Amino acid sequence: MPSTNGTVAPTSSWGTIPSSDVSRRTFNPIREVLSRPVQPLATVKSSNDPISLSIGDPTVFGNFKAHPVVVDAIEAAVRSYSFNGYPPSVGVPAAREAIAKKYSHPDALLTANDVIMASGCSGAVEMAIGVLCSEGQNILLPRPGFCLYNTIAASRNIEARLYNLLADKSWEIDIAHMESLINKDTAAILINNPSNPCGSNYTKAHLKAILAVCERHKIPLISDEIYADMVFGAQVFTPTATLTATVPVLTVGGLAKQWLVPGWRLGWILVNDRNHAFEHVRQGLFALSTLINGPCAIAQAALPSIFENIPDSYLPDLNKQLETHARILETELSKAPGLEVITPQGAMYIMVKLNIEAFEDIADDADFCHKLKWEENVEILPGECFAYPGTVRLVITPPKDKLHLAAERIAAFCQRHHK
Amino acid sequence: MPSTNGTVAPTSSWGTIPSSDVSRRTFNPIREVLSRPVQPLATVKSSNDPISLSIGDPTVFGNFKAHPVVVDAIEAAVRSYSFNGYPPSVGVPAAREAIAKKYSHPDALLTANDVIMASGCSGAVEMAIGVLCSEGQNILLPRPGFCLYNTIAASRNIEARLYNLLADKSWEIDIAHMESLINKDTAAILINNPSNPCGSNYTKAHLKAILAVCERHKIPLISDEIYADMVFGAQVFTPTATLTATVPVLTVGGLAKQWLVPGWRLGWILVNDRNHAFEHVRQGLFALSTLINGPCAIAQAALPSIFENIPDSYLPDLNKQLETHARILETELSKAPGLEVITPQGAMYIMVKLNIEAFEDIADDADFCHKLKWEENVEILPGECFAYPGTVRLVITPPKDKLHLAAERIAAFCQRHHK
Ligand SMILES: Cc1ncc(COP(=O)(O)O)c(C=O)c1O
Ligand SMILES: Cc1ncc(COP(=O)(O)O)c(C=O)c1O
Repeated sequence: MPSTNGTVAPTSSWGTIPSSDVSRRTFNPIREVLSRPVQPLATVKSSNDPISLSIGDPTVFGNFKAHPVVVDAIEAAVRSYSFNGYPPSVGVPAAREAIAKKYSHPDALLTANDVIMASGCSGAVEMAIGVLCSEGQNILLPRPGFCLYNTIAASRNIEARLYNLLADKSWEIDIAHMESLINKDTAAILINNPSNPCGSNYTKAHLKAILAVCERHKIPLISDEIYADMVFGAQVFTPTATLTATVPVLTVGGLAKQWLVPGWRLGWILVNDRNHAFEHVRQGLFALSTLINGPCAIAQAALPSIFENIPDSYLPDLNKQLETHARILETELSKAPGLEVITPQGAMYIMVKLNIEAFEDIADDADFCHKLKWEENVEILPGECFAYPGTVRLVITPPKDKLHLAAERIAAFCQRHHK
Repeated sequence: MPSTNGTVAPTSSWGTIPSSDVSRRTFNPIREVLSRPVQPLATVKSSNDPISLSIGDPTVFGNFKAHPVVVDAIEAAVRSYSFNGYPPSVGVPAAREAIAKKYSHPDALLTANDVIMASGCSGAVEMAIGVLCSEGQNILLPRPGFCLYNTIAASRNIEARLYNLLADKSWEIDIAHMESLINKDTAAILINNPSNPCGSNYTKAHLKAILAVCERHKIPLISDEIYADMVFGAQVFTPTATLTATVPVLTVGGLAKQWLVPGWRLGWILVNDRNHAFEHVRQGLFALSTLINGPCAIAQAALPSIFENIPDSYLPDLNKQLETHARILETELSKAPGLEVITPQGAMYIMVKLNIEAFEDIADDADFCHKLKWEENVEILPGECFAYPGTVRLVITPPKDKLHLAAERIAAFCQRHHK
């Protein structure tokens, strides 16, 4: 045993300290898939300059940039010297007020008390799942779906039951399949609309069909609407909570996507509870918010001015631009052999089905992505990252010339490997 | 059963949705104690204007204000337009670099890789406890101590075992008592130096004695140093990790206190692991960081410039001011009957022992605080909030005239209730 005066010599008798069960369960499938390459992803054969269509960050190329109003708002918050102190753990009152005002709807009224600020929409999802589901219960999640949901569920020992989305029905939910997964331990259903990775946007009728499942089984809904209002052409976005007077809904959202500031890490939960079923859940959310005391108060304080001063044209312009980008990829990739593009209706992604049989030497979607990176230096994500093998996901936000170039390279790659 | 087309009429058949086990376990003792008043805390008999010496936020009165360098730094980060995108989940590289440089020590070298950014020091503590302790294990925590530790442990079903601090030995740890609490399920020991609520600052010898306990039992240490360098007079602050070559130490800290910006919610973990025992723990911290993707990137980006441009006189001036404040309260309160002030050595708090026997009609520390609020409109926290009944904690950061006035009122209160 070492001496007891604290001046022990270096020793390896410590071995390796184990990390906790929770941290070992906190597993990110994207990292796992990407670290399993045919060729190491860091090295590429191609002398092309790299193009990444893999990360859902619209700001990386500089073509989608936060509006000056957004930056002025946070600068004013900094300059005011009024938000350096602790915010209430549920959020800065003016921010909660502004969100309630913006997202309140005659059929789903919100007050500041219904808003809880979170560290990004990620933090909002974490709290929403965390407050509704206990260890050993299960939650219904979309397949394909944003992988953070699964990571959070696994981290908390909540069973993830994946319901199918139907690619040939614009990614609508297979309602019968969803319903078949419900049992007495189902604590919540989570939907994501508009969707990452699908780029889908649901109709009112479809959302009502989902709510009816919740109603039949008395299961609360989490509606991830981080891509709220980001839809193309004649598409109409409908907040899920506005379609029910009874089903309790936690809507999660944030500034990241529409306002092009994912780095601010600002998200929120809207407690939609016209039926007064969420009394304990509200208390639980309040309790969970005290663990880290909310997100950066300065970013919160920028919200009222952002919502008030952004020009009316901002969102339509953004959506038009995104749609143009989506159509470029869709048009170009449709020409490539072995690919079937599923037309996106919103968000920032496009899903492409691979006809694996049509290729000579591509084992699966992960193999497709790895070889594409190796040979063409284009990075996209395999559907496996979203629990949906046989597809690939492309981010549509890079500049148009990059999209054209990426599509060209992908087409060349498909030509080359096609039977 | 309601109809299945989603247009059901309002119904109370939902009852109340239960909140999760985790959220029910996430319990804040301060709220519980404060909601148990002799008189409702919201109403006061006194016509005095209120003085709050209860919240550890140095910014509320405007006398302690972030240095212009700090505000300029975050403004420059905003203006750069370079930190609106996603930061890596472990943190903005330049921020990790700056922290490593500032806190590296010849006896505890740090590189950027040893730094993980968190949502406040609260988030850092949450991750540190979360990565080391599994459900069913135990962690050793200080009594009196910052109550968030207990809340986090309870939230995660980790048993909190409270070791005693010795009021008459400047709040040193009762090492024998600490050691007696260790069993095979002890996953970590947490210390807080300088301390909230004690205002204590440990000697090197005492820190070495603590490290020796870790060494003997091979238990990793979490050292909460959010009040690092905030010490008075001839006191010297020593980072715990610099005193050991073997014990793996997670040091947690943040901008909140020394830099007077708790609202920014910026904290960090320093992985001190000269003995290479924390390989899995590093991976675990990385995994946990992906859950919410780190704190606000703009606040992170301000760090290098803050550390570089803050005048050398800043910290000594701050400490001198804090010491002056502490001495005012100490001097004034020492005159009041029934109180015994324990001289603080650092941080932003002063602990006062109550001689409950000496009072006519004060049942305990909570009763003292509630009656003081009711009669004098001065708010302080009972030791019960820190698992240490028989004491009260005062925050020393309000302006001097408020401290004088508060001390006067407390003295009058004590006179009145003294036997
Ligand atoms: C569907 C979905 N939900 C939540 C998030 C997380 O958003 P945030 O960056 O605000 O944490 C993302 C980010 O990509 C997302 O795609
Ligand atoms: C000892 C101690 N640790 C951690 C914290 C949390 O700090 P932060 O505000 O950065 O989350 C506090 C805040 O009062 C504290 O006193």
